[in-house]
Amino acid sequence: MSANPEDSPSYSRTPRTTPTRYRDRATWEQEAIHAILDSAYICHLGFVVDGAPVVLPTIFARVGSRLYVHGSTGSRPMRNASGEQGMPVCVTVTQVDALVLTKSAFNHSVNFRSVVAHGTAHQVTDPEELDVALAALVDHAIPGRSAEVRPANAKELAATAVVRLELDEVSAKTREDGAADDPEDTGLPYWSGLIPVTTVHGTPEPHPGTAVPLPAHLRGYPR
Amino acid sequence: MSANPEDSPSYSRTPRTTPTRYRDRATWEQEAIHAILDSAYICHLGFVVDGAPVVLPTIFARVGSRLYVHGSTGSRPMRNASGEQGMPVCVTVTQVDALVLTKSAFNHSVNFRSVVAHGTAHQVTDPEELDVALAALVDHAIPGRSAEVRPANAKELAATAVVRLELDEVSAKTREDGAADDPEDTGLPYWSGLIPVTTVHGTPEPHPGTAVPLPAHLRGYPR
Repeated sequence: MSANPEDSPSYSRTPRTTPTRYRDRATWEQEAIHAILDSAYICHLGFVVDGAPVVLPTIFARVGSRLYVHGSTGSRPMRNASGEQGMPVCVTVTQVDALVLTKSAFNHSVNFRSVVAHGTAHQVTDPEELDVALAALVDHAIPGRSAEVRPANAKELAATAVVRLELDEVSAKTREDGAADDPEDTGLPYWSGLIPVTTVHGTPEPHPGTAVPLPAHLRGYPR
Repeated sequence: MSANPEDSPSYSRTPRTTPTRYRDRATWEQEAIHAILDSAYICHLGFVVDGAPVVLPTIFARVGSRLYVHGSTGSRPMRNASGEQGMPVCVTVTQVDALVLTKSAFNHSVNFRSVVAHGTAHQVTDPEELDVALAALVDHAIPGRSAEVRPANAKELAATAVVRLELDEVSAKTREDGAADDPEDTGLPYWSGLIPVTTVHGTPEPHPGTAVPLPAHLRGYPR
């Protein structure tokens, strides 16, 4: 928690955003949560069908304190979210930073940053909001991209579904430390340390036959 | 589906492992599913608490047609899975291979490999199975590691929880194609192609002060 909460607004803390373990790894600060969300573009969307959980990977974007999650009009979660009451969801975003190797099997860990957001998702139906959401989905993964493509036409818009989740009941969890060996393990002849993990975005590969040079927004691709 | 199913056994196909969209991207073949699972070590575990979905990242291992998913005895999902009837779960593993950029906003996509497994998870309580599962969890992420660490002691074993999920109702979904531009978009002055995405495991970084040289199982780290 921040020493000066007014400088660093936080989402409200609830029982289900308070971890049962490793509470010191958790934060509710908006800035920290937004930074993790903005570092990723894939989320795992959880919802419930006939009492059983379903978890699907998809892309998302953040616009202020709102998440937009991409789907399709024909897909199960989108049909569920199209009603007035919406659909209870959990949206989880995870970035892995290192494997943490210790002298004991038990202390092995992973350095990571994750965000877990709970709430009720609603399908975006307002055409203006859908335009904003679709541009955000493209630009969240590839900044500047939405201005340099053919916009969706009416038929494509009708085939696209996006759900909105207001960020409210949300927390982040982070581990960023080195190997945590037990003091009594110090002398053991086993290696401990980190294997760093990074997600690398390589050189863009033009579609065969394309005559268009690489545009500026991809030359400066920031990831 | 395989031309010769006897050579390539498949998991059984059920309504919830049959996607409502892009069925040609789905497979139930064991070999394909196992390959995706073995290429990853982070999963997203979905379960239901008071009717609402919860999705948490954690590590997993595959042993034959069985998944072991790591947790802690104090955590919510593990408490739920400790009863006789187990806990309905969905375990999803996702690998991203490329961003797919097209001339239209609508056709943008992601190349990926994912596995979604549904079923009932049970906490592993048999000490021998727990040993196997813990070694598998370490070795799945870091092959050869479990033989070169201090094994868990009784107190540590008691503080560790692992759930078992039999792979049965499981499917994989893969997209691995290039940019799919509409024929009528071909002449548009927009770039299309792929941005390759890879997860890179860097040079192991020894814990400060460690005197043990990098062991062979890390020099040959295969990822």
